[in-house]
Amino acid sequence: MTNANVMEKPQTIELFEELESQVRSYIRSFPTVFTKAKGYRLWDEAGKEYIDFFAGAGSLNYGHNHPVLKQKVIDYMMEDGVVHSLDMATKAKAEFLKRFEQIILKPRGMDHKIMFPGPTGTNSVEAALKIARKVTGRDTIMCFTNAFHGMTMGSLSITGNAMKREGAGVALHNSVFMPYDGYFGEEVDTVDYIDAMLQDNGSGVDKPAAIIFETVQGEGGINVSSYEWMKRIEQLCRRHDILLIVDDVQMGCGRTGTFFSFEKAGIEPDIICMSKSIGGFGLPFAITLLRPELDIWKPGEHNGTFRGNNLSFVAAAEALSFWADTKLTEKIDRQAEQIQETLESVAKAYPKLKGSARGRGFIQGIAFEAGSAADEISAEAFKRGLIMETSGVESQVLKVMPPLTIDDKGLNEGLELLRQSVKAVHDRLDG
Amino acid sequence: MTNANVMEKPQTIELFEELESQVRSYIRSFPTVFTKAKGYRLWDEAGKEYIDFFAGAGSLNYGHNHPVLKQKVIDYMMEDGVVHSLDMATKAKAEFLKRFEQIILKPRGMDHKIMFPGPTGTNSVEAALKIARKVTGRDTIMCFTNAFHGMTMGSLSITGNAMKREGAGVALHNSVFMPYDGYFGEEVDTVDYIDAMLQDNGSGVDKPAAIIFETVQGEGGINVSSYEWMKRIEQLCRRHDILLIVDDVQMGCGRTGTFFSFEKAGIEPDIICMSKSIGGFGLPFAITLLRPELDIWKPGEHNGTFRGNNLSFVAAAEALSFWADTKLTEKIDRQAEQIQETLESVAKAYPKLKGSARGRGFIQGIAFEAGSAADEISAEAFKRGLIMETSGVESQVLKVMPPLTIDDKGLNEGLELLRQSVKAVHDRLDG
Amino acid sequence: MTNANVMEKPQTIELFEELESQVRSYIRSFPTVFTKAKGYRLWDEAGKEYIDFFAGAGSLNYGHNHPVLKQKVIDYMMEDGVVHSLDMATKAKAEFLKRFEQIILKPRGMDHKIMFPGPTGTNSVEAALKIARKVTGRDTIMCFTNAFHGMTMGSLSITGNAMKREGAGVALHNSVFMPYDGYFGEEVDTVDYIDAMLQDNGSGVDKPAAIIFETVQGEGGINVSSYEWMKRIEQLCRRHDILLIVDDVQMGCGRTGTFFSFEKAGIEPDIICMSKSIGGFGLPFAITLLRPELDIWKPGEHNGTFRGNNLSFVAAAEALSFWADTKLTEKIDRQAEQIQETLESVAKAYPKLKGSARGRGFIQGIAFEAGSAADEISAEAFKRGLIMETSGVESQVLKVMPPLTIDDKGLNEGLELLRQSVKAVHDRLDG
Amino acid sequence: MTNANVMEKPQTIELFEELESQVRSYIRSFPTVFTKAKGYRLWDEAGKEYIDFFAGAGSLNYGHNHPVLKQKVIDYMMEDGVVHSLDMATKAKAEFLKRFEQIILKPRGMDHKIMFPGPTGTNSVEAALKIARKVTGRDTIMCFTNAFHGMTMGSLSITGNAMKREGAGVALHNSVFMPYDGYFGEEVDTVDYIDAMLQDNGSGVDKPAAIIFETVQGEGGINVSSYEWMKRIEQLCRRHDILLIVDDVQMGCGRTGTFFSFEKAGIEPDIICMSKSIGGFGLPFAITLLRPELDIWKPGEHNGTFRGNNLSFVAAAEALSFWADTKLTEKIDRQAEQIQETLESVAKAYPKLKGSARGRGFIQGIAFEAGSAADEISAEAFKRGLIMETSGVESQVLKVMPPLTIDDKGLNEGLELLRQSVKAVHDRLDG
Repeated sequence: MTNANVMEKPQTIELFEELESQVRSYIRSFPTVFTKAKGYRLWDEAGKEYIDFFAGAGSLNYGHNHPVLKQKVIDYMMEDGVVHSLDMATKAKAEFLKRFEQIILKPRGMDHKIMFPGPTGTNSVEAALKIARKVTGRDTIMCFTNAFHGMTMGSLSITGNAMKREGAGVALHNSVFMPYDGYFGEEVDTVDYIDAMLQDNGSGVDKPAAIIFETVQGEGGINVSSYEWMKRIEQLCRRHDILLIVDDVQMGCGRTGTFFSFEKAGIEPDIICMSKSIGGFGLPFAITLLRPELDIWKPGEHNGTFRGNNLSFVAAAEALSFWADTKLTEKIDRQAEQIQETLESVAKAYPKLKGSARGRGFIQGIAFEAGSAADEISAEAFKRGLIMETSGVESQVLKVMPPLTIDDKGLNEGLELLRQSVKAVHDRLDG
Repeated sequence: MTNANVMEKPQTIELFEELESQVRSYIRSFPTVFTKAKGYRLWDEAGKEYIDFFAGAGSLNYGHNHPVLKQKVIDYMMEDGVVHSLDMATKAKAEFLKRFEQIILKPRGMDHKIMFPGPTGTNSVEAALKIARKVTGRDTIMCFTNAFHGMTMGSLSITGNAMKREGAGVALHNSVFMPYDGYFGEEVDTVDYIDAMLQDNGSGVDKPAAIIFETVQGEGGINVSSYEWMKRIEQLCRRHDILLIVDDVQMGCGRTGTFFSFEKAGIEPDIICMSKSIGGFGLPFAITLLRPELDIWKPGEHNGTFRGNNLSFVAAAEALSFWADTKLTEKIDRQAEQIQETLESVAKAYPKLKGSARGRGFIQGIAFEAGSAADEISAEAFKRGLIMETSGVESQVLKVMPPLTIDDKGLNEGLELLRQSVKAVHDRLDG
Repeated sequence: MTNANVMEKPQTIELFEELESQVRSYIRSFPTVFTKAKGYRLWDEAGKEYIDFFAGAGSLNYGHNHPVLKQKVIDYMMEDGVVHSLDMATKAKAEFLKRFEQIILKPRGMDHKIMFPGPTGTNSVEAALKIARKVTGRDTIMCFTNAFHGMTMGSLSITGNAMKREGAGVALHNSVFMPYDGYFGEEVDTVDYIDAMLQDNGSGVDKPAAIIFETVQGEGGINVSSYEWMKRIEQLCRRHDILLIVDDVQMGCGRTGTFFSFEKAGIEPDIICMSKSIGGFGLPFAITLLRPELDIWKPGEHNGTFRGNNLSFVAAAEALSFWADTKLTEKIDRQAEQIQETLESVAKAYPKLKGSARGRGFIQGIAFEAGSAADEISAEAFKRGLIMETSGVESQVLKVMPPLTIDDKGLNEGLELLRQSVKAVHDRLDG
Repeated sequence: MTNANVMEKPQTIELFEELESQVRSYIRSFPTVFTKAKGYRLWDEAGKEYIDFFAGAGSLNYGHNHPVLKQKVIDYMMEDGVVHSLDMATKAKAEFLKRFEQIILKPRGMDHKIMFPGPTGTNSVEAALKIARKVTGRDTIMCFTNAFHGMTMGSLSITGNAMKREGAGVALHNSVFMPYDGYFGEEVDTVDYIDAMLQDNGSGVDKPAAIIFETVQGEGGINVSSYEWMKRIEQLCRRHDILLIVDDVQMGCGRTGTFFSFEKAGIEPDIICMSKSIGGFGLPFAITLLRPELDIWKPGEHNGTFRGNNLSFVAAAEALSFWADTKLTEKIDRQAEQIQETLESVAKAYPKLKGSARGRGFIQGIAFEAGSAADEISAEAFKRGLIMETSGVESQVLKVMPPLTIDDKGLNEGLELLRQSVKAVHDRLDG
């Protein structure tokens, strides 16, 4: 094996501009070459340190290179554990299955079957849509304004963002968009709206196979649905014999405080999509949970080469330990309150930006009315050593999503950098 | 962090039956729990050793736990290299980009842009279909009988297998299937057929955005297209102003001998889909290569959480070293001949099974006319310690795809087990 | 030419049950064999006389066998005028074009091009959808709850009735249903709702090629849109660069008082669909009116065998005379008031049926909350010699749509029979 | 009723250019205003006489203004027979049903149910597609290269012509095009091709609800399928449990010699679409014939305002007399031979045009290799007083379809004009 050493000088960002497709995105907001990461911190090739309030868009809930997870993965590799196994049985996969049942399903009284689609969120969603249609024999999926479910054709058809939808290059079918909780303001109950359309045989809204929603729309602008709304959606599903899918890809694994983001709503989705932090260590991994009676797949009817990513099984199995007791939830709840207070006080302190705080748990932010405020603040923060993205279809929402494991020191530092960044942009307006 | 040790006794296969979805497939053919793997060998929890003639369905071209790749990955982790980076720049990604340009693109006179879709083959294909439609403004993708491109909705629409198509639960649109090379026997030139339909404005076959094909259809039954056919398809594309996509997910990275499987045909696809062994170590990874003029994506128009799987960047960059000279290709060519001769002699030696050898490079097999012969031989082989899958819509083809790095000893042993397995099934018929 | 006289005895309704498809519908509500018709009256083979409050579902606005129209048609036939001409030029067609321009378009300041699709409402709508999509390059048509636009695939996709939609046998695409005026009660402005969805690039509601509506939804349950709502929809279309289509198939030709049903709203649709009474005499005929700048059809891009039904040209040209002055409109307005007063008083007089009057001009009715009241009243009326249909997805609305030419005597008689029929059903409930 | 006499001077063709949509087509080939028609002759406003070899594209099989049919229609109108009846029962409809059963169905041993869709060919086809999908639960319709089935969305999706397909403005779904008989030359059996695709579960060709074909493709260029091919398609349908639909809109009612155009093939389609000449007099009319077991429509599931065009019932019932004995068939067969001989001799006599005769019965023509020959000959013929259209996607086929009732004198005259016109174009080439 010849190893032609082709890299001699330090990387520069230009390399990416030259060789990588124009589709690249986050690199444009955070134009530096990162080399190292640990917990809530990142370092670039110049040695500059960053606090990470982005957490891999929710894939790094337990932080970068968590030492226990890392050691487990390395140990597994050192023993020449099977790395890639398609969907054959391995010790690592067995361990994950067993622990997921013991720590997650059983204590919650759930008996969902665990399906391993390809190792990405969109794949988990595609599998969910397929089985929902197969079980019900219906075509339509009911989804919501500003939903984000993924970029493959099935998931894209239920994603709201117009720019991303146009990327399909073809018309997207078999979905119907309904107003999410709060879409028309607090006084309008959008469940009533949906119910009216479903009850009316003349509405033109075909009875869907399933309703799918995110409990908090992260990409869509940190839109938070109330627990009551979720409960009413579930009741609507039961009343109309429609399957309920929760896309917990970003909000699951504790992002909002509990393992599943819908636990406090007291609902029991028929199908649950998980990815991102379910792998624990940031490696690709996804599962789709199905009520047993829905599990009518034929063998291999939905498959994928990388559904057996064993390094993820190892890290994922270990990461479930975070949920074996309530300590992490308590910590999240406590710090989430601090985040909320900070964001509210910041929004209030710099009124010219017309910001308002929003969010739940460790997915919070400030929505700005002023045009590019969020983008400018994100850029300011980056300069100051804080990685913080925006969301919403117009990038109008500043998004705060630290690793769940961040300590108070890190959180305080990050929030202080956030405050400074907002102030800087606000002051510029003042100028 | 509490680590509830929930696993006490040896894993059994029943655990999977109890907890995992019915969709599981390969575990049914190879019902044991694997614990360890190295090179071309696997071991199960009972300590039994298996020779791997499946190679992760083409994801393990360099074998299991290749020591150099493994060490690179472990070293990277030990240094707390960034594991998950979305599409931000990292040192590991830069290294991959640079080496891919130096070792792969430049020597072949290619200037394709490198796109990182989600880390799976189907995601690479979905990205290809989207950009082809966006660039041309056309809806239809022309694809081929017995094609396999993936399980998400876009890729599934161009996949031939009826059982998998039905899994969609909805009608699949915007694709048109044409007969692959040799579909109607050797005497019928299917390019002429396609050309006639495209030239005729009354044929009802809408002008497609792109034609997509695999150079050898692995899942479809090891159907091999001739280099001339590929060349004529390319000419057809140029003549009709249609984009040419090669799905090299399974056949790329040397499976047929050269890095790209189409190199000997002398064609230059507009878009190339790669996954499986491009990651080198069996970790999820995919790229889509685009001619620069097609790279009209808007930033973020196609994205995905795991497009920045840095452990894959590290292993993938290293694995490219296999292609820095021609040694591996020469070895493949030499051993491929041996495989072919063996398969032909086996097919001849056991005529009651009505088998005929087929394939190219390290993707070869025997197609059987007799109903379940391939499945039975695969089961026999498993008993004897050989992992060997079937393919084709009726599982009628026994498939031989060892790691490219297998040594002569391993190859000989595996082929001998194959011969014994065929004989056993043949003898049973004799009985 | 041999004329085998196969009919010897009086027709019976059984003949239809034996030979005609189960799809037959109105014959089930009005199970008798009609033989003769004149003005607002019909007679069956037993000689029983009926007052017609159905008017061919709006195709017989000028009554049955109007003597002037009939004479014109017979004269034309006697002279061996061209009956069927595809879209070649005929004297009869020229006359229609000229008169339509002179009497209808010019006085209203319109310069729409006149297109002759196939001779049915659904064909006019299909042509409208096609040209709207062709002009804008967009796929989606925005339509409304309880809309009815026709039964061919394009029109059906924008029709609300679930039973009829299921008849398609396939999923219906490229349409999005919005709440019609008043759908959520008087207090909710549905234009605001639509506007919010269109303004929000994350709503998932793709920008449509066109918005299509009926000014009064006849089949949908006599839902009346306010003039202000129509005006606001037009403004919305202009603001978002969306084409406006009015389907005036049933409401046009004076059904609501003016020639076009939208005249009082002061709007100027880009495309107008007309059929039913545009032919004047009840013969198949349809036109689609297009603003000149939208008329980018290629020759023959939309065609149809019967777009040149000259007997319709003759009758239609003559029937336009009704609109050369305001007499008919004044008569309709006067009698419409009487109908409204009667329906309101009837609804009030028989409160147990929980009916409420609704409608505009000569399309009025009573919506009943009580289950089958409308159907029962229709059946009672039929016994008494009054043809009166129901509408709405649950047949919950009794529909009154006499010929526009009905005299006071006929109207009084019909309304009296209506009152008696309502009373009979009410009394039965009392029993 | 005020009759504003707006027409004072003779019509000119300019009127149409000014007021009618650009979509107009035949008027461009035959630019004159017709005023009168009788049998096989037409006259324009200048008094010029034309022989009609177009016959309303097959809608005037019994000629213009057939005296018996005309008298029946006038008599019916004079008695104030019901003209428009939706699908209520009328004496005229009963008469048609009874006679259709007696003269057509019974003698052929058929018990198909008669469905009245809207009064056009495309509507008959849309109804056929809907019921085929509803009965089978499948989405796809298999259709053929160069098929023409109509312009509404469902029919258009199974029509081959690219220009017309683009008119849809959206992607057309749920159809798959197969090569028609002879598409790849005489030596290729296209049924084998289709059979291979249907048998192969990996072909990507979804099992269709139905196969639909025209026995001769009129619009598609007078492509004639052999009786054996039709029979083999029927066998294929039975073998694969696929419904067989014959679109006999243009070829039915004797155009090829027998009432149904498939009679000589000995097949029994499950569904038959009829329109054009089924009305007898050129008035809009259509029926769809369904095997009784397929008649699972719900009442009103497919409807249409003009499905009760009683003038057509009257004429259609009377026109069936033509089929009460075999005289017309014998006459067609005899004259068809003469047409064929003439076309062959003409094609031979003017070899520079590279024409070859084709067709069956009274739908014959000459296909020219030379670019615009057919169009030029059509234009020459028009000058000489012969109406004769072209067909084929490039207008490459000169089409001869006189009324079935044409006498020998008329036929001779027309064929002589045809010969002169061909000669004129040929001579021009010689020049």
